[in-house]
Order: sequence, then structure tokens, then C-alpha cells
Amino acid sequence: MTHSVCVIGAGRIGRIHASNFAALKGAAVRYVVDPVAEAAEALASAVGARPAGLEEALADPAVHGVAICSATSTHADLIEKAAAAGKAIFCEKPVALDMERTLKSVEAVKKAGVPLFLAFNRRFDPQFAALRKAIDGGSIGKVEMVQITSRDSAPPPASYVATSGGLFKDMMIHDLDMARWLLGEEPVLVSAVASCLVDPAIGAEGDVDSAAVTLQTASGRICQISNSRRAVYGYDQRIEVHGSEGLAQAGNVLENTVRISGVQGTTDARLLDFFLERYAGAYKAEAAHFLEIMEGKSKPLVSGDDGVQALKLAEAAAKSLATGMAVAP
Amino acid sequence: MTHSVCVIGAGRIGRIHASNFAALKGAAVRYVVDPVAEAAEALASAVGARPAGLEEALADPAVHGVAICSATSTHADLIEKAAAAGKAIFCEKPVALDMERTLKSVEAVKKAGVPLFLAFNRRFDPQFAALRKAIDGGSIGKVEMVQITSRDSAPPPASYVATSGGLFKDMMIHDLDMARWLLGEEPVLVSAVASCLVDPAIGAEGDVDSAAVTLQTASGRICQISNSRRAVYGYDQRIEVHGSEGLAQAGNVLENTVRISGVQGTTDARLLDFFLERYAGAYKAEAAHFLEIMEGKSKPLVSGDDGVQALKLAEAAAKSLATGMAVAP
Amino acid sequence: MTHSVCVIGAGRIGRIHASNFAALKGAAVRYVVDPVAEAAEALASAVGARPAGLEEALADPAVHGVAICSATSTHADLIEKAAAAGKAIFCEKPVALDMERTLKSVEAVKKAGVPLFLAFNRRFDPQFAALRKAIDGGSIGKVEMVQITSRDSAPPPASYVATSGGLFKDMMIHDLDMARWLLGEEPVLVSAVASCLVDPAIGAEGDVDSAAVTLQTASGRICQISNSRRAVYGYDQRIEVHGSEGLAQAGNVLENTVRISGVQGTTDARLLDFFLERYAGAYKAEAAHFLEIMEGKSKPLVSGDDGVQALKLAEAAAKSLATGMAVAP
Amino acid sequence: MTHSVCVIGAGRIGRIHASNFAALKGAAVRYVVDPVAEAAEALASAVGARPAGLEEALADPAVHGVAICSATSTHADLIEKAAAAGKAIFCEKPVALDMERTLKSVEAVKKAGVPLFLAFNRRFDPQFAALRKAIDGGSIGKVEMVQITSRDSAPPPASYVATSGGLFKDMMIHDLDMARWLLGEEPVLVSAVASCLVDPAIGAEGDVDSAAVTLQTASGRICQISNSRRAVYGYDQRIEVHGSEGLAQAGNVLENTVRISGVQGTTDARLLDFFLERYAGAYKAEAAHFLEIMEGKSKPLVSGDDGVQALKLAEAAAKSLATGMAVAP
Repeated sequence: MTHSVCVIGAGRIGRIHASNFAALKGAAVRYVVDPVAEAAEALASAVGARPAGLEEALADPAVHGVAICSATSTHADLIEKAAAAGKAIFCEKPVALDMERTLKSVEAVKKAGVPLFLAFNRRFDPQFAALRKAIDGGSIGKVEMVQITSRDSAPPPASYVATSGGLFKDMMIHDLDMARWLLGEEPVLVSAVASCLVDPAIGAEGDVDSAAVTLQTASGRICQISNSRRAVYGYDQRIEVHGSEGLAQAGNVLENTVRISGVQGTTDARLLDFFLERYAGAYKAEAAHFLEIMEGKSKPLVSGDDGVQALKLAEAAAKSLATGMAVAP
Repeated sequence: MTHSVCVIGAGRIGRIHASNFAALKGAAVRYVVDPVAEAAEALASAVGARPAGLEEALADPAVHGVAICSATSTHADLIEKAAAAGKAIFCEKPVALDMERTLKSVEAVKKAGVPLFLAFNRRFDPQFAALRKAIDGGSIGKVEMVQITSRDSAPPPASYVATSGGLFKDMMIHDLDMARWLLGEEPVLVSAVASCLVDPAIGAEGDVDSAAVTLQTASGRICQISNSRRAVYGYDQRIEVHGSEGLAQAGNVLENTVRISGVQGTTDARLLDFFLERYAGAYKAEAAHFLEIMEGKSKPLVSGDDGVQALKLAEAAAKSLATGMAVAP
Repeated sequence: MTHSVCVIGAGRIGRIHASNFAALKGAAVRYVVDPVAEAAEALASAVGARPAGLEEALADPAVHGVAICSATSTHADLIEKAAAAGKAIFCEKPVALDMERTLKSVEAVKKAGVPLFLAFNRRFDPQFAALRKAIDGGSIGKVEMVQITSRDSAPPPASYVATSGGLFKDMMIHDLDMARWLLGEEPVLVSAVASCLVDPAIGAEGDVDSAAVTLQTASGRICQISNSRRAVYGYDQRIEVHGSEGLAQAGNVLENTVRISGVQGTTDARLLDFFLERYAGAYKAEAAHFLEIMEGKSKPLVSGDDGVQALKLAEAAAKSLATGMAVAP
Repeated sequence: MTHSVCVIGAGRIGRIHASNFAALKGAAVRYVVDPVAEAAEALASAVGARPAGLEEALADPAVHGVAICSATSTHADLIEKAAAAGKAIFCEKPVALDMERTLKSVEAVKKAGVPLFLAFNRRFDPQFAALRKAIDGGSIGKVEMVQITSRDSAPPPASYVATSGGLFKDMMIHDLDMARWLLGEEPVLVSAVASCLVDPAIGAEGDVDSAAVTLQTASGRICQISNSRRAVYGYDQRIEVHGSEGLAQAGNVLENTVRISGVQGTTDARLLDFFLERYAGAYKAEAAHFLEIMEGKSKPLVSGDDGVQALKLAEAAAKSLATGMAVAP
């Protein structure tokens, strides 16, 4: 039996998820919903779906799941509507930029009894998944310290920053989720230091572009996160986990394996430059996971509560930065 | 306009090429031809094609190209029939195991005036393509010496060896093609040394499983090839090219980027173990290339003549091994 | 002309410095001073010196420099005595564990007008020196963020911890000095998180064994330091510096370049396990630098004031840990 | 007891060996012999020796060993004289460039009953020694195929080439010795291909500058050697050994561990550029080994017979190149 998805949002990330669902044996895209008719039509045509309005799509009992890929500000409403319609929900992170709205949506989902899968892509990245598997397999003993390096290749425009929720909620929230996932315990302390070093326009929006956050769990495990909005050498995504019996490191993914040795030394290829390339495998794995959820074979590996916890950490980081104190999330 | 392919052979490699054509915008699989009806039907159903007999498929003017993925012994006949039918031809290497049959088929193709693309997958591998691009871009100056390391992860069964044509024609022929492609000049001298070190059953078939071949071009460029039928650490596929101004190396592809440090040292992930994984990207690129050929936008990057030249080198290697002399191909 | 050194302290580090001075063209060891007569005699004999009492050695005008390699608690006194005797001073870090005593000694040295070289070994490590040189050469643009990873291979005995001054003053002080050296600006903010994860006996002494400290300079540059008292895979000493135009990383030093590939993957050699091996090159460079100081050709690259600043940062880290606040050093 | 060495030859390599002997506890340099008086005096003064004539030095019973570091053409005579004087002999490779002279000297040494240590430095290189140790420890199972890459960073002047004995005897002889050492069996077949690609002046002297040689042992083990007189990226010295259960690779030694990532990719430091730097550790280990020989604690790890075998392989390579046939050494 094929499970059908309605994809909401025909922008960049919507196109990726739609084509992954379309390529997946057992899944199909039935509708594409987007207020921009041309975008909806183009994507629908590419994936064997048809454009539709939200209400029509949600009313169709042949739709098993809804993939929310629209602007962040619309996520909470759409989650609630999809929940009311009894659909399985796939939602790009975050639920919302404020806690109250987030909690309300998550509550609505629980009441409706539908599964909500919050698409924190990094948990599905083959590199980080292999890292976690190695740790779970005991290869480094008990986790003690985690270091997460996460740098965008280039800063976003200031206009994006203005509505992004700020670095902690927009960018570091991925790393905060990784930290929770790898520490194996909830952080009880958050301490943040941050600066505007990359682009003064980001500072003018009241945001930072370079940040260092430290987390600590109740048993004392520690995580350091380093964020920058610029890395001219490519999208820098590395994690290392230090344990009682060893060290596990997930490295960057290079464009290819070619090395050139010349008078200056030996040069490896560039890093994959952009999150869409770097996490292409993660997006495919997310689609496969959501299919299993629709099929009732799996519970969401990232739930609405995970979104709540990550948001709490991001808010704690912002508060720590503002007060100069380590704060409890 | 969509270009339609008839895939001949519904075995392992046929399934790969068929699904790549099916996934390619602008291409479709129209027929699957295989004497085993269940295999033909299963593959046809998976790629939106229908099973058919060879004559029916070749007679259909809606078929633009034929992808020959059947047993080696059938290639030459099929090439000739497809050429007679005026189809563009995609053929798994080799054309044939003997030179006479190979030349006859290549001649038939030339007379028919159809394009023949001989699918030497390594030219399409993203790693080796990046290597070649770096060399063409001048990053190492003039090519002087090439080293090709090519080791299967595990030896084939002796029954396979019996009909394979032997290591030089079955396995090293890929490396001989790489050598021609990277040396930038035709080899004029071939010198071979080989042994049976891995599996006595291979020796019992009159074949070798470990071989070292050296090629030299008229201007003196040198290539060393190392082959083994076993590499317990994975499918070992590396090339390095030494030039007047530097060294370019294409390395192996690992399962992931995770490194584990423990008391024994630091361990990287295994190599991709199998040619179907390692060259998955190459197969996709081959399909895309053949689509361009069918569209008339591109000439085959590997022609029947390339197949002839590689076979000549393989035959020369066998002769050198038998005589203890460096021989001209 | 040969410049003569009096080495005070014939323990492990004294033996290293003494033999480096002895091997250095232009330098000689004239006296070894140690209350344990056998130790003084053994070392003196090995380096062509003779054992002597402190007063005798300081009174000898043929002694140009004094190398203080004795227990930490004796450093301040010895610095003052050597300064009073007009000798150039080489002193193992730290001057003292408390600020008052440190400032008093540094003041005495300034009054005496003698050079004091505080031997922070990492500034002389060939890896970190090459890192600094690359940064100074402009290879990564303007420094923005520094990450320092520093892990001992095994925890010290609790008895050592009891008199060590604690992790921040004993171990992280090296990293704090590296941070100052690489940030290019003084930190104005220090924020610390720490735990006892490795050995409860360390906690019983009131110390921590795992720590994460973040520094920030006035212009906003950020440094994260990670310390652990245990790394079963070897002495883990890495620094990376992220700048406006690139990333510079100084990696660990391995026992050798041999890699073994087997069914489990590919394994590199262990890290050098111990600071005496890892920093052997640094100790030689320190001796050479001190010779240049004695010869009047160079000023100390690490002064008493550098020791004061590093100690301030260590004290600020301890205060931040105690208060949960980011503090100014 | 100190064992005294007479160093013959005060050139580049003589200075290295002399200073290593001088720095070695238990060894001393007593005489330096060189027809250029200034050179002999300068070196003697630097290592605590005195200049002397050959006869005087050999007549002195306080001399335990002779280190022959003079021009190749003098080696055989000096070996015979030192043997006649009953001294332990350390001799830079080769004994002589022709087989007859080599055999005569080796015979003289055997008759005299003195130890002759032929200083093939690579057996003492820490990287290759670790490689051999890993193999001996069983980490790759049974040795099957060896690949040796050996490239000088820059070609020698044609004047050097004229008297060098040619690439096979001058340069590849090191690799031929490595091959014997790592194959664990004597080669019974040698096949050579070579060109002049780097410098026509080398060709004008009748020599080659780029060569590929294949060896095979009686049980079928295979070794490929690649030589070039130029590698602009540094002195390229790598060996890999493929066995029934894995692969062992000894890599190049870099100037430092610093990596710079920028828009072009990630660049590692250059290789050590010159054999004197790359093999500095090997020369020290040779001195220590010769001291053990003088002390009677060890037999030479490389004997005159090893020199004979390596020369036989070099001559066989030259013959194979001339005849186009694989030849028995």
C-alpha cells in the first residue's frame, strides 16, 4: 500500500522533501500546497502530485501525512490544523520561535493522538548517525565531554536575521538538539558567550554571529558548542565525543577524495559547501522515517517534546548571554 | 521529449542501469528483455517498463537506445543486432573476450553509423573524474608516472573465473583503460608479472589472482598497475598520478567520516566494500551520459575503439606474462 | 664564548633541561643544585657539571644563568635569590600558586634588571609555533575563534592534586597562556564549567578533572578550552583557530606514520603519550632561547608578566566556577 | 667503557655520523680522517676528536671501529684495510659499484672475522621499522604484494650522475634492499621499465630518471618499485605492504601537523624535503646499532652479503631494462 503525503510549501526545502517522498517506494506525494500557484504547480508536476488548497488536502482521507515545509511563522497553525485533521505530521524545525506557541501546538498534537515528527535533520545525517551508533556500541565507554563545531559557509542577509529568532533559536538549536542526543542526559546548566565578528549588519539587528555555549548535565557531563556564521572553507559540521575509554569524531564531508601535492603542501578537496548538499542523505532518511511513521511501524525519533527541550536550551543561552550567568534551562 | 531505453539483462547490473534510467528526467525504460521471464517482469514493473522479446523491442521505433547488461558472451551479437536496428548502444564492458569478435562488432557499429558507448564505469566515478579534471587543469604539470591500485574485497568463485577471460581481461581491463585515460598517450610497451597467492582454485583454472603490470608510452611515461583478488579491508580503488609539478591522488571512499581513538590508535571507517556501492555515482553518471548521446548532444566518451585498445593491452599483458618479455600491444 | 647555567632541581624536568643545555653549542651546565646529593651528583656527572650548594653556585661569576626546575613551592624564593645575584633566570612555570607571591617575585626581577624567562613550553612546540606562524603570515585573516583541546593521558595521583593548585592553575594555565598568545588580545571575560568525571579521588581533594572554559576579548574574539585528566588514546593536544579567511589546525603528533587496514577499518598509530615526548622539541627550543637571552641577543618571549596574566585567568576561571558568573580577570 | 670510532670522510654524511657517535653515551670519535685537512680539523674539533692519517688511526688499538663515509670509489679499499686492522666496520652503502670488487671486499671481511655493518639507512627509519614490526606482529597476515614509492625532491647534477653507477645502483638500491627486507623471501625475477622524463642531461649521461621495477619471489610474492628523480612536493618515501589479512602503509613525514583550510580546500604541511632530515632518526639508530656491534652485543643487521644481494638486483634491473626481458638476479 502506498502512503500519500501532502507537502505544504514549495520552496527550497519543500522541493527536497517532496522529491524524496516521490522517490520512495511505498510513498507518494498527492498534493502540493503553496499560496504561490506557479510554485505549487511546478513542484506538483515534478513529483506526480497536483496543487491544492490546504482545506481540500486536509479533507482528503487518502492523505496519510502532511509535510510542513513552509515559513517558520506558519508551522504552529499548520501543525494544529493537520492534527485536527488526524494526519501524521512531518514538520521542519522549529514548531515556533516562542515557547508558549510551541507548547500549545505540541499539546494539540498530543490531544489529537497523531504522530508529530520534528525534522531535526542532523540526527539522520549518516555521519552523525554512525557517531551515535559507535557510542551506543560502547566504543568510547561512558560519555564525558562533547564538542560541537557548526559554522555556516556564509552569513545570511540581515533581512533573514531580522525574523530568524536569532542565532540561538535559528542556528544553534540544531547543535543543542545534537548535544541532548549525544550527552544522553538533559542539560541542567547553560552558559553562553557571543559576539558579532562577521557582519556588523547582523549586530545591527540585535543578533550575534559567533557564539560559544557550554552545557552541563546533572551528572556533570559537559558539552561545548562553537557557532560562526562564516567559514570560507565550507560548511563546517563536526562533532567529537570524549568518553571514559576513547574519543569518537565525526568529520566533515569533502567534495571528493582527491589530494594534490605541490610545492605548498598537500591539499584536500573543499568541504561540501551548503547544508542541502551536506545533509542530502539526512533528508532522504527523514522521508524514509516518516513513511515508517505513517505505516505505523515506528514512533517519531524526534518528537514535539524534543522541539520544546531544544527551544528551552536556546532561550537559556540567550538569557545567559544577557545576564552573564550560567542559567538552568 | 523523453528518450526510451530497452534494457537487455535483468540481473544485478541490469537492475542498476534500469533504475538509473528510470530516475533520470528525460529518460524512460520502455522494455526489459531477459530470457528469465520472472526477472524481466519484476524489473520491468519496478521501472515502469514492460517485458518484451528482443525482436519486438528492437523493432519499436519508440526505442532510442539499447542498454546491453546481459552475459559477456552475448554482447557482440546484441551490439550487432542493435546497430542493425539503428539504436544508440550502451554496452557493459567488454565487447567480447576475443579480439576478432570485438573488431567485428565495432566495425558493424561504425557501418551502421550508430553511437556505441562502452560503459567503463571508472571514467565516470566522481573521484577519478575529479582526478582527471585536476590534471587537465594543470595542477601537476606534465604527467610522468601513474600508479593504479585495484583490489577486489574478496575473490570470485572459481566457476566465475573459468569463463571470465582471466584476470587481465576481466579485472585489470578497467585499470588498463584508466591508464590510457590518464597517461594521455597510448602505451607501446606492456610488461607483466603475476602469481596465484589468494586462492589455489583460481590457479587451478589457469588464472592468476595477483598481478603487477607496467606500461610505457612512446614519450616514456610509465604506469604501474597492482591487482589483487582480495583485500579484507574493502574494495581498494586508488590512483595516483605523478607529474612534473606535483602529485595527484584519488583515495578510497569510506563508509563514513567517523574516527574512533582508543588505546590501539585511531581507527577510520571501512572502505566501501563492493563495486556497486563504490561506483554507484559512476553508474548514475553513465546513464546521464547515454541520455545525452541519445539526444545527440554528446559523442560517447568511451567508444568501441577504446574497448579494442584496452583489450589489446590485456592481451599484451597475458603474452608478457607467458613469455617473460616486455611486448608491444 | 660559552654561557654557563646552574640547574636547580635534578628531578625529571631538571634532567631534561640540563641535558638540553649540555648538548647546545655555546652553552654548558656548570652546577647542579639539589638537596638530594645522589641526584645532584648523578645529573652533574651526566652533563659535565659538578654538584654544588645554592649559595656557592649563585656566588660564582662564571654562572650566567639559573634554570629553576625544582618544586613549585620553591620557585618564588629561588627567582628572588637568582635576581639578587644578577643572573638570567629560566623558570619552570608557575612563579607561584598565589598572586601576591607571584607579583612580589616579578617585581624583584624587574628591580634587579635581570631577564626572567618563564618556560611555558607550548609556545616553543614546533606544531604550535608553526600554527602561530601561519596565522601571523595572514593565512586565515583576522582571528575570531580559538578552540583548545588539552587532555592528559591519565589522571595524576590524588596526592599530586592536593598540592597542585587545582586544575585551572596546574593544567589549564598552559591553555590559558596559549589562548592569550593566539587571540592576539587580552581576555576580558572568563566563564567556567567543570566536573569531576574521571576520578572521585580528585573530587575528594576539592578539585575537578574535566573543565570547559570560555574566554572573550574586548573586541569579541572567543576562545573555548576543553580539559580532561584522562585520554586513554594518548596525550591529546590540539588547537584550532578560526579566522575571517580560513581555519588553522595544529594536530596531535603520532608515534609513527604507519596505518594498518583490516576488517575493522584503517588504524593510525597512537598519539605520543606523554608530555615529555610530545614536547621534547619544545624543551630543546627553550634551551636555545635561554642561551640567546644569556647572550643578550633576545628578550624573553615569555616574561614574568605573562605568568601573572595566565594566573589571573586561572583564578578568574576558578571564581567563575564557584559563582556561576562570567567574571573579568 | 667507551668505544672509539675513527670517522673516514668529513663531508656531509661523515659529519652526521660523527656527531651521532659523539652524542651517544658509550661511544666517542677518536679520529677524523680526510685528505682535506681543514675539513678533518673542523669536524674533529666539533666532535672532540683529532685529525689523523689513515695509517695512524688504523694502527691505534684504542680505535674499535671505523666509519667509512668517504666517496663510494674508496669504500672497498678502506673496508679491506680496516678489516686487516681488525676493526669493526661501519660503511655507507655501497661497498662498490661493481660486483667483483664488492665480493672481494666482503670476502676479505669474512676472512678477517670482523663485523661489517653496511648502512642501508631505511631499515633504521622509525617509520619503516614500525611497518616491519607491524608485519612481523602478524597484523596483515602473510605478505603478498609490496609497493615502494621513492622519489627525490630534485634531480642531482649530471656530473653526479656520471659517477653514480646509475639510478638502479645509486638510488633504487635502497628500495631493492627494502623489498628484500619486507618480502621475506629473495626475489627470483626482476623486470624493469625506465625513462628519462625529468632532465635530459641525465639521459645524456646514459642514465634514466624515472623507473618502475617489478620483483617476484619463488613463492610468487610481488614487489613494485617506483622511482623518480623529482618530486616538487618533497622527498616522497612511502611503502605499502598488502597481505592476506590486511594492508600496512608507512606514510611520509610532514614538516608539522598544521592544516590550513581556505577557499581552495585544506592544506597539510610539506613533506620533509631532504633525505638528511627525513632519515635523521635512522642515522641515530645506525650509530646506536654500530655501538652495540662494537660492544659485541649485536650482529650487523645489514651485512656485506646484503650489499651483494641488493647489487645483484640492481644489476638485474639494468639488464632487464637493456633486454626487455624479466631476468633472474
